[in-house]
Amino acid sequence: MRTLKLILRYDGRAYAGWQRQQPNRPTIQRELESAVLRVTGVPGVVHASGRTDAGVHAIGQVAHLVTPCELPPEQLLRALNANLPQDIAVRQIFEMPEGFHARRHARRKTYFYQFYVDENRNPLCSRRALHLRRWPDLARLRLAAEILTGRHDFRSFVTGAPDDKDTVRQLYRIRVLRTPHGLRIFVTGNGFLRHMVRSLAGLMIRVGTGREEIHRVEEILAARSRSAAPAALPAHALFLWRVDY
Amino acid sequence: MRTLKLILRYDGRAYAGWQRQQPNRPTIQRELESAVLRVTGVPGVVHASGRTDAGVHAIGQVAHLVTPCELPPEQLLRALNANLPQDIAVRQIFEMPEGFHARRHARRKTYFYQFYVDENRNPLCSRRALHLRRWPDLARLRLAAEILTGRHDFRSFVTGAPDDKDTVRQLYRIRVLRTPHGLRIFVTGNGFLRHMVRSLAGLMIRVGTGREEIHRVEEILAARSRSAAPAALPAHALFLWRVDY
Repeated sequence: MRTLKLILRYDGRAYAGWQRQQPNRPTIQRELESAVLRVTGVPGVVHASGRTDAGVHAIGQVAHLVTPCELPPEQLLRALNANLPQDIAVRQIFEMPEGFHARRHARRKTYFYQFYVDENRNPLCSRRALHLRRWPDLARLRLAAEILTGRHDFRSFVTGAPDDKDTVRQLYRIRVLRTPHGLRIFVTGNGFLRHMVRSLAGLMIRVGTGREEIHRVEEILAARSRSAAPAALPAHALFLWRVDY
Repeated sequence: MRTLKLILRYDGRAYAGWQRQQPNRPTIQRELESAVLRVTGVPGVVHASGRTDAGVHAIGQVAHLVTPCELPPEQLLRALNANLPQDIAVRQIFEMPEGFHARRHARRKTYFYQFYVDENRNPLCSRRALHLRRWPDLARLRLAAEILTGRHDFRSFVTGAPDDKDTVRQLYRIRVLRTPHGLRIFVTGNGFLRHMVRSLAGLMIRVGTGREEIHRVEEILAARSRSAAPAALPAHALFLWRVDY
């Protein structure tokens, strides 16, 4: 048996997220496992570094597959891509030592949330970015980023965490980058909880547009209560950018 | 009555092109005219600078509307956008002198065709760009562009033109521009025939990737026969960029 590491890109819009679960909704995992079965003739479980939520995209999702298939990586990649729908593709395949596990061995993950700035709605941007009518204040965004970086209990930013769930995570870095038509907020951490990036980005953008004062960031973090923080932003503008091992 | 000029953006993927015609297929024109009726309470015909084909996008389509509606342009724009589907939006509205006609008065139009370059298919690009595995030779593309620029009979590049149809057009400029992930071929002319830009781009890219010799461009142009030229490229990577008056 070989252990393979797969780097994946997908447009998540049509999918109920990563995980195969609901019997009638397409998921990224199910599409991949169908392609593996068709290409190798053998069922194989594809384990990701973590679930992405319904509608979330990936540029560098990582998954592993243990398979008896002996195709060289480049050939397997082409064959899988030929058997995947247009909105999912394998970008690279690497041979790994036995025991490599995409989720357990992940050290850091980076997501980004994407905004476009335009006085009016732009249908050519709105598919994978959130619309802002005016530029937020990048200095304020970066101040908020500084406060949120580090090891904190992020309970205020997590949806549906039971009381006994450990919601402490370490954020190594939050970067705010301008793009030609808008901006991206990159968040790198040792792990993320449900809706966490979308809630952090939601608070940051409220600070950046002046709807929330900067001192509120610390208060909301300290509250450790979901109701303290603004709602999570929509999924369609969130990307899993990379996973480091 | 007022005459208004509308600048429009749309993602054409879901539409059977600009023109309201087939009773059961959605078109850009029909969506706009429904929005006009809902917002102004009065039916109004929205005339574009020209039809875009099924699946083609626009960043600067121009249309005019003659209406008794007295809303200020900015207010009308917001109201129309609130009544349009997510993949269509009005970008700007201008008051025009009576008699302005979006099609008859158009002097030049510019389209671009968009490619992305990646060893493997990228689902985050493939929605509105055509996949190339390797970089084409930009110098060869530009040589082909030079030969095609000017006043020519473009019959070889037109689908379904009857024998007596005038297929002479003037191309003012063809530009080949690199983008971060690929390239765009911009074509500016006094008018375009059915599939013309997609056929020109198709021939150019064959020259750029070495599948067609440069001298073939002149031969194909001179043949004045559709069967002489390569097939038109798919619609999903073509954009109407701007219309000049």
